[in-house]
Amino acid sequence: MQELGVVHRAISRAAEKDVKALSNYGVSTLHEAMGRLGLMRPYMRPVYPGAKLCGTAVTVLLQPGDNWMMHVAAEQIQPGDVLIAACTTESEDGFFGDLLATSLQARGAAGLVIDGGCRDVAALQEMNFPVFSRAINSKGTVKATLGSVNVPVVCANALVNPGDVVIADVDGVVVVPAARAAEVAEAAATREANEESKRLRFAAGELGLDIYSMRGPLAAAGLRYVD
Amino acid sequence: MQELGVVHRAISRAAEKDVKALSNYGVSTLHEAMGRLGLMRPYMRPVYPGAKLCGTAVTVLLQPGDNWMMHVAAEQIQPGDVLIAACTTESEDGFFGDLLATSLQARGAAGLVIDGGCRDVAALQEMNFPVFSRAINSKGTVKATLGSVNVPVVCANALVNPGDVVIADVDGVVVVPAARAAEVAEAAATREANEESKRLRFAAGELGLDIYSMRGPLAAAGLRYVD
Amino acid sequence: MQELGVVHRAISRAAEKDVKALSNYGVSTLHEAMGRLGLMRPYMRPVYPGAKLCGTAVTVLLQPGDNWMMHVAAEQIQPGDVLIAACTTESEDGFFGDLLATSLQARGAAGLVIDGGCRDVAALQEMNFPVFSRAINSKGTVKATLGSVNVPVVCANALVNPGDVVIADVDGVVVVPAARAAEVAEAAATREANEESKRLRFAAGELGLDIYSMRGPLAAAGLRYVD
Amino acid sequence: MQELGVVHRAISRAAEKDVKALSNYGVSTLHEAMGRLGLMRPYMRPVYPGAKLCGTAVTVLLQPGDNWMMHVAAEQIQPGDVLIAACTTESEDGFFGDLLATSLQARGAAGLVIDGGCRDVAALQEMNFPVFSRAINSKGTVKATLGSVNVPVVCANALVNPGDVVIADVDGVVVVPAARAAEVAEAAATREANEESKRLRFAAGELGLDIYSMRGPLAAAGLRYVD
Amino acid sequence: MQELGVVHRAISRAAEKDVKALSNYGVSTLHEAMGRLGLMRPYMRPVYPGAKLCGTAVTVLLQPGDNWMMHVAAEQIQPGDVLIAACTTESEDGFFGDLLATSLQARGAAGLVIDGGCRDVAALQEMNFPVFSRAINSKGTVKATLGSVNVPVVCANALVNPGDVVIADVDGVVVVPAARAAEVAEAAATREANEESKRLRFAAGELGLDIYSMRGPLAAAGLRYVD
Amino acid sequence: MQELGVVHRAISRAAEKDVKALSNYGVSTLHEAMGRLGLMRPYMRPVYPGAKLCGTAVTVLLQPGDNWMMHVAAEQIQPGDVLIAACTTESEDGFFGDLLATSLQARGAAGLVIDGGCRDVAALQEMNFPVFSRAINSKGTVKATLGSVNVPVVCANALVNPGDVVIADVDGVVVVPAARAAEVAEAAATREANEESKRLRFAAGELGLDIYSMRGPLAAAGLRYVD
Repeated sequence: MQELGVVHRAISRAAEKDVKALSNYGVSTLHEAMGRLGLMRPYMRPVYPGAKLCGTAVTVLLQPGDNWMMHVAAEQIQPGDVLIAACTTESEDGFFGDLLATSLQARGAAGLVIDGGCRDVAALQEMNFPVFSRAINSKGTVKATLGSVNVPVVCANALVNPGDVVIADVDGVVVVPAARAAEVAEAAATREANEESKRLRFAAGELGLDIYSMRGPLAAAGLRYVD
Repeated sequence: MQELGVVHRAISRAAEKDVKALSNYGVSTLHEAMGRLGLMRPYMRPVYPGAKLCGTAVTVLLQPGDNWMMHVAAEQIQPGDVLIAACTTESEDGFFGDLLATSLQARGAAGLVIDGGCRDVAALQEMNFPVFSRAINSKGTVKATLGSVNVPVVCANALVNPGDVVIADVDGVVVVPAARAAEVAEAAATREANEESKRLRFAAGELGLDIYSMRGPLAAAGLRYVD
Repeated sequence: MQELGVVHRAISRAAEKDVKALSNYGVSTLHEAMGRLGLMRPYMRPVYPGAKLCGTAVTVLLQPGDNWMMHVAAEQIQPGDVLIAACTTESEDGFFGDLLATSLQARGAAGLVIDGGCRDVAALQEMNFPVFSRAINSKGTVKATLGSVNVPVVCANALVNPGDVVIADVDGVVVVPAARAAEVAEAAATREANEESKRLRFAAGELGLDIYSMRGPLAAAGLRYVD
Repeated sequence: MQELGVVHRAISRAAEKDVKALSNYGVSTLHEAMGRLGLMRPYMRPVYPGAKLCGTAVTVLLQPGDNWMMHVAAEQIQPGDVLIAACTTESEDGFFGDLLATSLQARGAAGLVIDGGCRDVAALQEMNFPVFSRAINSKGTVKATLGSVNVPVVCANALVNPGDVVIADVDGVVVVPAARAAEVAEAAATREANEESKRLRFAAGELGLDIYSMRGPLAAAGLRYVD
Repeated sequence: MQELGVVHRAISRAAEKDVKALSNYGVSTLHEAMGRLGLMRPYMRPVYPGAKLCGTAVTVLLQPGDNWMMHVAAEQIQPGDVLIAACTTESEDGFFGDLLATSLQARGAAGLVIDGGCRDVAALQEMNFPVFSRAINSKGTVKATLGSVNVPVVCANALVNPGDVVIADVDGVVVVPAARAAEVAEAAATREANEESKRLRFAAGELGLDIYSMRGPLAAAGLRYVD
Repeated sequence: MQELGVVHRAISRAAEKDVKALSNYGVSTLHEAMGRLGLMRPYMRPVYPGAKLCGTAVTVLLQPGDNWMMHVAAEQIQPGDVLIAACTTESEDGFFGDLLATSLQARGAAGLVIDGGCRDVAALQEMNFPVFSRAINSKGTVKATLGSVNVPVVCANALVNPGDVVIADVDGVVVVPAARAAEVAEAAATREANEESKRLRFAAGELGLDIYSMRGPLAAAGLRYVD
């Protein structure tokens, strides 16, 4: 499944309307709507405050300290795609900077998620090009070894298939499989409506103990109150 | 002392005027005023820039990946309280989000300090509800296992008794025992006055070497100058 | 080479015009211009957003939890210097706060880089005194043990000699040896000019594959395209 | 693909003869033979010195601090299987101890690989039941929430499908997809034969520079020798 | 409660017979018998294989990089005591080596648990003096600043009162409050007897699913089997 | 000083008799004898129990995930040398395995210290070839990018010049500059003699408080005893 030295040009992207629908929700809502699957490790953070993104995954598998395949991946980007960069090992070097960002942005990319390092952060913020990474690091990379593009990758412990929808905001990064995009968007909508009604009750001072009818189960579990 | 499955309803909070007095000082000043005790580990960070809080501790001991007791704790909150959440083990899941924040805020809570994860950070910032945590994480929790409320807890390596004053800002989180609140506020005032006079001397170009009369002790310790 | 208990008063600083020239470039550009040497570990981060600095190094070797030598170092500061603080071991205590910052600023220091902790961050931000550190920590320090000033130090895995130029921004911290300052500034200028022309081509939608003539080498390395 | 609350009873295991063939090689050799894919993160370590294992994967997806599904998985174990335990989040609690080990061993399991904690290590060593984990931790777990058995899982950043071959030794843990088992065993044999001949030349004092004909390429890359 | 500069000479140790009883059980058993409280963080590890200890706590609160109080604590040691060393901040320096071990051993100490670094590990192993620490580190310490002896301390996130029983083995370090020593030893005995009977059933191939009657609850929770 | 693409063939090694003298002492003793300088970070650990080494440094500066220069360095090894491998960035890949070990051993190398990963650990142990590294990792490396040999390097935060003496054991790794080798060996001898006399007094039950005359200074510092 994972293999090196290959570029898949034909991938099947999630439907545009589903991506659009998913873009209305935050990562935490979507993660719940998916049944709590597909979340990347929390070490993935926005490189500047306010960064957020939603798009279809073009994946790239990098070698440590080597960003050759980022350029190969750039050619496969279509408007609305997010580049998802995994690495064959842990590497926090700066695989990505403002020139590659300019290239991706020119091709319509919605952002980058990279299990590695990123640099030129001030420029990225000015360009409004969102990046989520495990590190900020000036250390540049070489162009010497093949990886792959548009193969399934494991990025920050989450499996990403090309064409999946990836959403990232201050809460983290979540992957919605293309086949589940419509269903998850719908579940998110339901969840949010439900949360809104709960929020009003909480705001009015009602307790979760009562809203969720927890008093009985807590007593049954043996909770004791002491004055 | 630490026990599971119990909620103490009657706790003795630090006096309101002492809490108010303590709220005038930053964490670093208070930590010094306390004699350098009571500081949580520095991995506890504000979830958004500018977050700060000061209030009396309601404590909760959580189980990993389980926020059932957060709802139990919410009922014990009185205006001006800060919820201090410890966990029986290391867990960075998202125990806390905007609904619980709405509930706590409705009851007058001054914020949350949690040795775990937090989510819905954008909403928390909008609500102006300060949270200090070890992680930001979308991963939600279940409601299955008992912990305790208002027992003494160890949170980020600091002991917190219910009713203690907890202060948090960009420098960290410090715990002032209720019995020491008045004394520490006074010591902080003295310290700050003293620092202000020192600051003027430093600003005028005087050196710490002279302000603190260090040249003699340094020479005695053997410091050599080489030109 | 490294020794304890000594202060070198006479150090040879990089030429002012070279420092000024270097201050025009970001850390990532300079690190490239140097041939990818001299970068500190990426755990060194600005203590507030937007902090940046460029100046000549006055170095100090600290003992853990002890900032006595910071005061000794302050006397050696000349306008435009940056204080570079290494420690004989890993220590994240708060060696530095607003009083020392006032002192350094009064003497014309351009900032601080410390492989340790820093506190009073809100005040530092207000004072506009840039600090790069490995931690933010209220824990204060004592004044009991000798280190050294203006000896060569290893700070966050980078060797710094007194008088070297140190530049820090959101991308990290880089050290330019005094003897290479002019050459590196020039190389940075060349690099930036070259990048600017590339940026225009990328912005116009041209690919790195073509700009850098990578298609041949990639094919030679065995890259396969699959439709 | 990943889903919660399901147990797949019918899985397709790699052929026994291929598993046997793979068991002759170390993890580093197999990782090379696979083309450098399938390696778990290096934080996965044996819980006692000398532990090693090779077998077919039965996978389990756990919830944090909850080992209910370990018991469900035990029933799916056949002689020669290795249990591969992933978790929906980072959790270092002690999901596994000597009783579960007794159960797995009774059913013929060849060991456990768990992206979580393990306890009763002294007993495991006595039983000679190999475990590779991210932590050793006495903290026990509850039995409250569903995960899944024999779904594809991401364990320590590696994708594992039920039936894949998993090999672990002091060098780490590697996953060989069932479909590639025969081919990889063969490649490992070739590689080892090749290494053996190289080893003799190295032992005789010949240099890698000559064995691999590197002098030309190094010179071409610009390597300079200075006396 | 925590204070600096004080040595409590009179402490109330757990009864000798209870300590002896507790010494029969492993850390994981005792942690369960206590109701899953009192465990130190899992970063506390034995400095050599096979190290284990059980004894009554003499506590010491250290300053970073300073082992002055270790000598003060040594005088308070009685035969059968374990020295529990906490630090006012995170510090991995080598506070403890073979000379202090000789001193403690001469006074009958059963070992050391230190939330800091330890050195002379080869000698400690030869002396058979068990140490559990967060690091092994040659870096020595100074003798300059007061801490305290026999005050309550938080060590690796666990509260330890002087006189408590501390047990450590390969699974970790657990603290049994003096007042609970007898009860916990009894609970451990019961638990072990119970485990022994379970072990026999597991060894005979019976499943946890049946031993613990889990099939019903799992089905009720919605577990589905797929063939 | 640090530069890429160069091999220095002529280096000045510490005198053989000094290396031999230093080999009689442990790392902790030598670190003290040096005045507590020259210690590598404590994350550097032996890859198998009992590993220890002492020899003159041949240094190599590696690129991440690339061990080309290890082969270049091998040619510079003379009997009694230790290879000290630093990397231009943090990289835990397996730069070193049994073939390179065979090569180094054939040339008389006394071992390897690498701020990176190592593999084939079982074979290294059998060969009795000592390695100290930051990680054990099967992930292999490529041969594509130039580093340097016998330049000064910073390895695990310690400066190493070619020809320096490097000593490593269970306590860590220390670097003795060639120019100080004789002096440090002598200081170590003195220190050990002194320690031996102290050990006898400690073993006889005398306290450090008395041996080091600490009671006065402790009282002067304000230590209070409470009964």
